[in-house]
This record gives sequence, C-alpha cells and structure tokens, in this order.
Amino acid sequence: MEALLAQIDFAKGGGLVTAVAQDAETGEVLMVAAMNELALRRTLETGEVHYWSRSRQELWHKGERSGHVQRLEGLYVDCDGDAVLVRIRQVGGAACHTGHRSCFHRRAEGGSLVVEGAPLFDPSEVYRR
Amino acid sequence: MEALLAQIDFAKGGGLVTAVAQDAETGEVLMVAAMNELALRRTLETGEVHYWSRSRQELWHKGERSGHVQRLEGLYVDCDGDAVLVRIRQVGGAACHTGHRSCFHRRAEGGSLVVEGAPLFDPSEVYRR
Repeated sequence: MEALLAQIDFAKGGGLVTAVAQDAETGEVLMVAAMNELALRRTLETGEVHYWSRSRQELWHKGERSGHVQRLEGLYVDCDGDAVLVRIRQVGGAACHTGHRSCFHRRAEGGSLVVEGAPLFDPSEVYRR
Repeated sequence: MEALLAQIDFAKGGGLVTAVAQDAETGEVLMVAAMNELALRRTLETGEVHYWSRSRQELWHKGERSGHVQRLEGLYVDCDGDAVLVRIRQVGGAACHTGHRSCFHRRAEGGSLVVEGAPLFDPSEVYRR
C-alpha cells in the first residue's frame, strides 16, 4: 500500500485529495468528498469507503450512522495524483444524506435547478438514532 | 442563469467548486477539475466546458489547444452546492493530457497502481502547436 500512497499528492491540497464515488454497477456518480491519507488507508484496509469530513474535521466512515456504507469495488488515481475515483456498491441504495440516490440529484434546466427522482429513505428516520 | 448560480456555494471553496466530468454516453468518469463562477457561466453560455486552472490561475476552455473540447449534455449540482457534475461528449475521445481517455486510468491493484488501456493520442503531437 505504501507504493500506492507514495503516488498520491496529498500536499497539493493541504493534506487532502478529492474523492469521487461512482456506482460500480450503473456508473452513476453518487458524491464528491475529500480524503486524507488516513481515510484512503482505511478505505483500502477495510474495503469500506472512508472520507475526511472537512466540516467536522474528523475521519468519516461513510454510512457509519445510517448503515449505508460504500463497499469498495475499485480505486483509481488521476493523472496528477490529486484525485481518486472509488467505484463502489452503495448499501441501502442512497449515498446522499437527503435520501436521494446521488448527491447530484438537481439538474440545471432553463437557468434554474430541478430535482430529479425521489428520496429512497427518510433522513429523519435514518439519522434519528 | 442567475437563479442557478445563486444556489452554488462558491464561497466555501474560496471561489471554486469541484467539477466532475462524466461521459454522457458511457458513464465513464473522465476528470475532476475546479470551476469558478466565470467558468460555470461560460460553460452554460457556450455549451462547452470551461474550468478554472489553479496552476495557471486562468480561465481554461478545455480542449482549446488540442481541439478536444467537452460538449455539455447536462449539468447537475450536488446537495450542498459545492460540486457540479457535467455530463459531456468528449470530442477526440480523450479527456486526459496524457492521451488516455480518462484521467483516472491508473487502478489500484495489490498495493500499487496499474495503467489501464492505451493512450488514444500522442500528447507530443497534439500539444506541439
């Protein structure tokens, strides 16, 4: 794993790289977040995606509270090493905290944003624990 | 367009949002870059994707030199408004400056990175002009 980590440019983004999560089966882009070295390491070690929460300034095991973890199917590094693509299987079907399948569920149309699709879960149920 | 731009949180990232480019036909994630408000505005106005180059600190009309522009097919905004997804048609077939179709052409395998696929063009030819 050290050989892989050595090829990732964490310094450029102040210790963070951009991580794009894509549904491994459908190809749908589900979310974008940040990873630091620890998050990437844990992702590779556990097979479940970990990010770095910039708002909370802590390691973020995605789905830890909701149970909707992201199982890693493949990890790709971009040409300049400052972004990674994780191809995943989204447990529970939805990656977004709103209950929508993808965080990118608002489409630009005629100069404004239109919501596509319906939430798959009720966030007030999933996050109340 | 102002209604749309008002819903995008440029302030959070110091004037920039993350932009993920995805092939509209195949679903392949091609690259990740940054956009400022001007870049997003030009993208919507022209139908060709513009980014903000952080290294050159200038507006970057993708494909301007190589001819390999990205034609916009759809634009999505994420739940917290700090990332956009552009679904595009990649003219010339390759988004990466290395000639590879995707910037994410290196796959993690056994703790190191393995290049997938072959370049579609020779960068020394495309960029020598």
